[in-house]
Amino acid sequence: MSKAVRILGVDPGLRNTGWGIIDMVGPKLLWVSHGVIKPKTSLPMSERLAFIVNGLNEVIETHKPDEAGIEETFVNVNPKSTLLLGQARGAAMAGLSLAGLSVAEFAATKVKQCVVGTGAADKDQVTFMIKRLLPKAEAMTADAADALAIAITTANHRDIKSYRKTA
Amino acid sequence: MSKAVRILGVDPGLRNTGWGIIDMVGPKLLWVSHGVIKPKTSLPMSERLAFIVNGLNEVIETHKPDEAGIEETFVNVNPKSTLLLGQARGAAMAGLSLAGLSVAEFAATKVKQCVVGTGAADKDQVTFMIKRLLPKAEAMTADAADALAIAITTANHRDIKSYRKTA
Repeated sequence: MSKAVRILGVDPGLRNTGWGIIDMVGPKLLWVSHGVIKPKTSLPMSERLAFIVNGLNEVIETHKPDEAGIEETFVNVNPKSTLLLGQARGAAMAGLSLAGLSVAEFAATKVKQCVVGTGAADKDQVTFMIKRLLPKAEAMTADAADALAIAITTANHRDIKSYRKTA
Repeated sequence: MSKAVRILGVDPGLRNTGWGIIDMVGPKLLWVSHGVIKPKTSLPMSERLAFIVNGLNEVIETHKPDEAGIEETFVNVNPKSTLLLGQARGAAMAGLSLAGLSVAEFAATKVKQCVVGTGAADKDQVTFMIKRLLPKAEAMTADAADALAIAITTANHRDIKSYRKTA
């Protein structure tokens, strides 16, 4: 019926950038792959950021996603941490766009609501639900689970948009 | 005596990313070029960030700098603004590193101290001093002046490192 759409979800972070790929075939969501990009903390900041972009480029070359989604980070930390997180997020978003992907942005609460049913869900609940929603997914860290949750949110959001267009 | 070293200074921002290029020939600093990269505010965030990276790549291809420096933004704004600024900075730093440049980081107060003599200098004082230090520089906005100030700080810092190595 529908052509598969491949979606890349990214949970950006300077230490751990999670990524997850799913296929959306009609209403079905199928797990494809996931992982975590870990730049060495000993590298200069600019090289850590470039490492994130290169890592995402490898994922894109390997899995050829059609679209991407990223988490709009909830800002509850100190300004220094917020700036560092913004840097990781900015490098990732620029890299995805330069690779030719559209990048949907979702608030962390929206991602949790979409996957768990409540915006206040913790990381364990997200991982638990990802394993239920994508039963074929291999073992994953919380960062990769978050990235898959973002991919699912992107897929669901996309579906609503398509529905609206044809309605 | 000394070979010229070409330095690119970058003052990152989502609306205005200033850039400035100088040549350091021995102790002399010579103006080469400067400008401002202005992504359309109507573009999606990821495309604005990609526009900054593409703009810097054009500057790098045209002027072929040997090294780069960037301002470590002073965090005195609200968390949302800090995150956005971090994103612009992260995209710029990743782009510079992916283009093969080392990226030195300097606190805004250090840049002002280096150029004006006080870390509390305002933008007008920075622009005034840049015009004195680089008399051949053409008319510039405050963002481009800041970028040239960062290039000068990078040059001076570099000189101290070289001096220490040979001392």
